[in-house]
Amino acid sequence: MNIKVIAFDADDTLWVNEPYFQETEQKFCRLMENFLPAHSVAKELFKTEIDNLALYGYGIKGYILSMIETAVRISDKKMSVELVDKILDYGKEMLDKPIELIEGVEDTLEALKGRYKLVVATKGDLKDQHKKLHESGLGHYFHHIEVMSDKKAADYDKLVKRLDIQPSEFYMIGNSLKSDVLPVLEIGGHACHIPFHTTWAHEVVDHTIVHKNFSQLEAIGQLPQLFAV
Amino acid sequence: MNIKVIAFDADDTLWVNEPYFQETEQKFCRLMENFLPAHSVAKELFKTEIDNLALYGYGIKGYILSMIETAVRISDKKMSVELVDKILDYGKEMLDKPIELIEGVEDTLEALKGRYKLVVATKGDLKDQHKKLHESGLGHYFHHIEVMSDKKAADYDKLVKRLDIQPSEFYMIGNSLKSDVLPVLEIGGHACHIPFHTTWAHEVVDHTIVHKNFSQLEAIGQLPQLFAV
Repeated sequence: MNIKVIAFDADDTLWVNEPYFQETEQKFCRLMENFLPAHSVAKELFKTEIDNLALYGYGIKGYILSMIETAVRISDKKMSVELVDKILDYGKEMLDKPIELIEGVEDTLEALKGRYKLVVATKGDLKDQHKKLHESGLGHYFHHIEVMSDKKAADYDKLVKRLDIQPSEFYMIGNSLKSDVLPVLEIGGHACHIPFHTTWAHEVVDHTIVHKNFSQLEAIGQLPQLFAV
Repeated sequence: MNIKVIAFDADDTLWVNEPYFQETEQKFCRLMENFLPAHSVAKELFKTEIDNLALYGYGIKGYILSMIETAVRISDKKMSVELVDKILDYGKEMLDKPIELIEGVEDTLEALKGRYKLVVATKGDLKDQHKKLHESGLGHYFHHIEVMSDKKAADYDKLVKRLDIQPSEFYMIGNSLKSDVLPVLEIGGHACHIPFHTTWAHEVVDHTIVHKNFSQLEAIGQLPQLFAV
């Protein structure tokens, strides 16, 4: 392995993210329980999110817009505007959440820095992600942050070109097999999967990966062993 | 002048943007006219936008969320949910607008390409801006697109470092004195102002600029003259 750049996914790899979405979803389901049972609300919300993905992309603002749209639809335009106000507040709370680092992140970055160029490669909202990196206090470990509009093979191809390295010199770390692992292996890069305890339904992949460039770890704290001299 | 990189702002520099916001604002003011006269609705919306800027950033999704918030506030939570639905539709229409290039853009890029590294340097929503560049058909003229979370001097400093050039080798073209010109001159770069017929109130600067690195043109079609051999 002759790795030059190690890229880290951010949400649920460096810091906690998905639980906040799930927490908000639960509040939303309770908010709408006069119209539909919770599991049906969740299903409707997921449908709206997927329908809007091409238009809204990933991130909290699109999520909140999808939540409002779902509320309007399942209440058949009969809910009170009070609920809209509450949903807007949920969004602001999410955007304002303090960053909670995942255990072992800081020691791992400390062990790798200087030996590799470290970057953050994340999708989501540009502004949100810059803000989170800033607030995480991890900024100084990274050469820069790449906020990608998607994480398909073509997007990683562009990233590797912009980094001016070969795909084989690129190592991606993340919690999503679909976004952080499969497309990277496809272009000839290396990838390590570190599952987070909860994953957004849209990111779930259900098969086993066997590939010479693939590793799986239980926790990010084990990462330095992979790169031991 | 030893320029290596020419960066173009995107919205209202390469393609039409602000008129769509103003068009939507007018529709919104009409929608809310049972609660407040149009000019007061516009004022309230502007206030909400500025209050939310740190949290939402620039872009259509934040704009729509601010519009919904304004509607809830000025109707004192008494409007019908029907209106929320309409506002969500306004947002989707905006996100779906076809790209309309500003006259002279294509000839200008054609004249400059190959002689300079051309990049797009824009703020706004990452996903929206990538989509617009793709749909504009201008993508092949540019080395890449930089979607910046803000356009202050510190942001341009980072940009120039990432481009691996000196500030004096950087030339920025845009329609906003506040975002595209003043911070670039501040870090020692060059800037050209090409006013668009309409500017968002938040971007208006009302003083005259006299600076050796500053130019002003009436239309982007005049740009190649600035870089004539």
